[in-house]
Amino acid sequence: MSLAKLKQRVAELADLGAAVHLLHWDLETYMPPGAVGDRASQLALLGRMEHELFVADEVGEWLDAAARELEGQPADADDVRAVAVTRRDWVRARRVPAAWVEEFARLGSLAQHAWREARAGAGFGHFRGHLERLVAARRAYAEFFAPYESVYDPLLEDYEPGMTAARIRAIFGELRPVLVALVAEIRARGQPVDAACLEGDFDEAAQEAFGLFVLRRMGFDFEHGRQDRSTHPFTSPLSPGDVRITTRFDRKLLSSALFSSMHEGGHALYEQGIAAEYARGALGRASSLGLHESQSRLWENVVGRSRGFWSHFYPELQARFPALDAVPLETFHRAINRVEPSLIRVEADEVTYNLHVMLRADLELALMGDELAVADLPAAWNDRMREYLGIVPPDDARGVLQDIHWSGGSFGYFPTYCLGNLAAVQIWDAAVRADPELPQAIARGELGRLREWLAANVHRYGRKYDPDELLRRATGRPVEAGPYVAYLRTKYGELYGL
Amino acid sequence: MSLAKLKQRVAELADLGAAVHLLHWDLETYMPPGAVGDRASQLALLGRMEHELFVADEVGEWLDAAARELEGQPADADDVRAVAVTRRDWVRARRVPAAWVEEFARLGSLAQHAWREARAGAGFGHFRGHLERLVAARRAYAEFFAPYESVYDPLLEDYEPGMTAARIRAIFGELRPVLVALVAEIRARGQPVDAACLEGDFDEAAQEAFGLFVLRRMGFDFEHGRQDRSTHPFTSPLSPGDVRITTRFDRKLLSSALFSSMHEGGHALYEQGIAAEYARGALGRASSLGLHESQSRLWENVVGRSRGFWSHFYPELQARFPALDAVPLETFHRAINRVEPSLIRVEADEVTYNLHVMLRADLELALMGDELAVADLPAAWNDRMREYLGIVPPDDARGVLQDIHWSGGSFGYFPTYCLGNLAAVQIWDAAVRADPELPQAIARGELGRLREWLAANVHRYGRKYDPDELLRRATGRPVEAGPYVAYLRTKYGELYGL
Repeated sequence: MSLAKLKQRVAELADLGAAVHLLHWDLETYMPPGAVGDRASQLALLGRMEHELFVADEVGEWLDAAARELEGQPADADDVRAVAVTRRDWVRARRVPAAWVEEFARLGSLAQHAWREARAGAGFGHFRGHLERLVAARRAYAEFFAPYESVYDPLLEDYEPGMTAARIRAIFGELRPVLVALVAEIRARGQPVDAACLEGDFDEAAQEAFGLFVLRRMGFDFEHGRQDRSTHPFTSPLSPGDVRITTRFDRKLLSSALFSSMHEGGHALYEQGIAAEYARGALGRASSLGLHESQSRLWENVVGRSRGFWSHFYPELQARFPALDAVPLETFHRAINRVEPSLIRVEADEVTYNLHVMLRADLELALMGDELAVADLPAAWNDRMREYLGIVPPDDARGVLQDIHWSGGSFGYFPTYCLGNLAAVQIWDAAVRADPELPQAIARGELGRLREWLAANVHRYGRKYDPDELLRRATGRPVEAGPYVAYLRTKYGELYGL
Repeated sequence: MSLAKLKQRVAELADLGAAVHLLHWDLETYMPPGAVGDRASQLALLGRMEHELFVADEVGEWLDAAARELEGQPADADDVRAVAVTRRDWVRARRVPAAWVEEFARLGSLAQHAWREARAGAGFGHFRGHLERLVAARRAYAEFFAPYESVYDPLLEDYEPGMTAARIRAIFGELRPVLVALVAEIRARGQPVDAACLEGDFDEAAQEAFGLFVLRRMGFDFEHGRQDRSTHPFTSPLSPGDVRITTRFDRKLLSSALFSSMHEGGHALYEQGIAAEYARGALGRASSLGLHESQSRLWENVVGRSRGFWSHFYPELQARFPALDAVPLETFHRAINRVEPSLIRVEADEVTYNLHVMLRADLELALMGDELAVADLPAAWNDRMREYLGIVPPDDARGVLQDIHWSGGSFGYFPTYCLGNLAAVQIWDAAVRADPELPQAIARGELGRLREWLAANVHRYGRKYDPDELLRRATGRPVEAGPYVAYLRTKYGELYGL
């Protein structure tokens, strides 16, 4: 009875959450520009309603009673897990006072505005005070979850349950020197890759058609999803029956929309693959941001930048873009895997990308741990860029100001990008161990075989297991750097003849 | 203080209403088909939340206290009117038990499903039981507002405050014989109009571009609105900064998208013209459905089917559709004003359209007044079609089953279409009295002059005045049939040489 009431409330929260997703999706896709103020107040209201509906006292009573109703059931039963994850969320949500949530939202919206101005020319000084207030607010947030080992732990927990600063330091500490050395080796090899074939003038409609063609082959379900355009690509899982992705087209750069579609498509397959019986329930979401990213990066990079994939799909691409007729597959494959230190994270290649992320994680840890003042952040950024990538941004817009995350106070988010890359390779390796013919199937254009394995071993479980547990079940191991290092060494060793 | 609290709640209701609008808009435009079940539960939840937020006891307390705070202010002050209309809505909403609302929504969703099947071939019998239950539910609804003069009055009040069955009977009673006679006269004249120029193959992109061109000239603000596509065109006023319209394109029929864009554009100009200070407030909506329709029909028909309008815009249209090069303006103008009894309301011309509406109003009055059984509805429909228009539908799909309204239990809605047509002409006449050069300005393509007059005399007031009062202020008279009859007599007398 209480379990039923609890499930009803969780379903209502899912429905309300769908409306919030739609408001956000629309904001980034079709909303007329003059509606931005109206939309902010709509989002604030629905966000508040979601919070109030969830933290209500009666939810706590239902949680207690539901746990009693489920006594004797196995710890692994869906209902037992659903009650457990709901309780964890509820306890965490109740620890945060409404006044803090409101003030943080206010700070964030002011900071985001200042950040845009700072990036557009006003400079870091214009943003500094806002960032200081956000760091202070996030420290205060961490206190709600005291005691903790690291002040960064409660922040990580929101995005990646079970992850800690200590584990991040250990994993990144293992990965960092390998990547720095690999970048240096590739540089020293002195074989610059020619990526000219990706540049030119590529019809947008043809780009879109090819992207949709690949998404269909991946198994994206257009009956229960769609693709639109936005400045920054994203995935919006409104509901089990409505998972939307966006992409952007660059007429001058063929690879932009293509890999963005595969990336978001990977996110979408995760959402579409969650067990149907979890719909509108506590388990009907992804396990973590890191695991979500593992799915996008698996499709974008491990599959989408592999030679096998293109041995089937390159002729399809050439048929749509005659300019590629004269470009051999090898040249194209090298071009989409060019390694080159660059300034902007979202444009970085598979090897350097994680260094961008680690740099941010280092700085977040230092900021939150009070080892670095916000005023010293630009210099610290540039120092690390030199150390990790051997280049220094000519200005803060292409340096410390490039990402939106900090302007919303989202510290603890960046590490999940790197964890996702690591998990992508671990999961791929497990899939190939289970089905050694998988690479050959992909080389024949049969992508459904991988999607089905992922659905059965990762997607379907939704939030039933925490990321560590889910990864252990799927691959035998928690997230770790080794497999990723081996993958990079093999792939780029071959490509660059190291 | 209580007034401030009341305004805050009304603003929240506006924000929540915007989310509901977006969920509906998306349902009709971009939502993937497989999401229809998810969307239904999202809409049900937000509808329930809206209702609960509004009918709460504290709103009644704030209403009482706010009225005291406003004592001594003129009856015409915005705040006084805002409290008055909110009280009226609140009292009405509180009279309807939540159980009735829930049951009615359930009946409606079952009925709509059955109606679609009935129309697709299962026949009226498949829908009959559902309609009987909806009629009974609506009679029960009327009882919540007893005593009443006519059981139809409480239904009308929801759509057209102040309107009554007695007035509808009087106005329609005056209009009906004139229209029936006019249709007969036109038929008897035996001069069939050649509308072949509207048929052919018209590029959709060019149709869309011309529609957007006209909308811009009307003054539609694309910074705060947009146009998309849907099966059935509609206007969705999400918020003051976000008014959306949809249209549909028929490659084979040029007039379809064009007049649909002008029609919805007229609705949108109303919403965009409401005083900025009413935003998110109780007065920040249109006065009634009938007045809303007056604005759409004014632009679609009184302006959009006038010779003056096309003397400027026809060359623009010809430039985009070379097939019209050989078609003289007179031929085109006659084609878009062809009068011909037809089966489908939404495709009917300016003269016969109101007869379609009156037929429905007659039947609704008879159903609600228990003078007609649902079982006898198809025969009654066909009898009236013969009487009013001289034709009889070959099947119920093109007869009694053609409109969606009854399947949702929306009795009392149809009359507002006719009232809108009447008011459109009254308002146009008043605008020309105030600015006799208006027709010449329109013939020069200067549509902004009319829009500005409408904004200043109708739009800006939002819900401050009930439709009768607003129309009296704008035109000197309540809604009446005379001006419309005169308008038709003049226009169609000329066109058909009567």
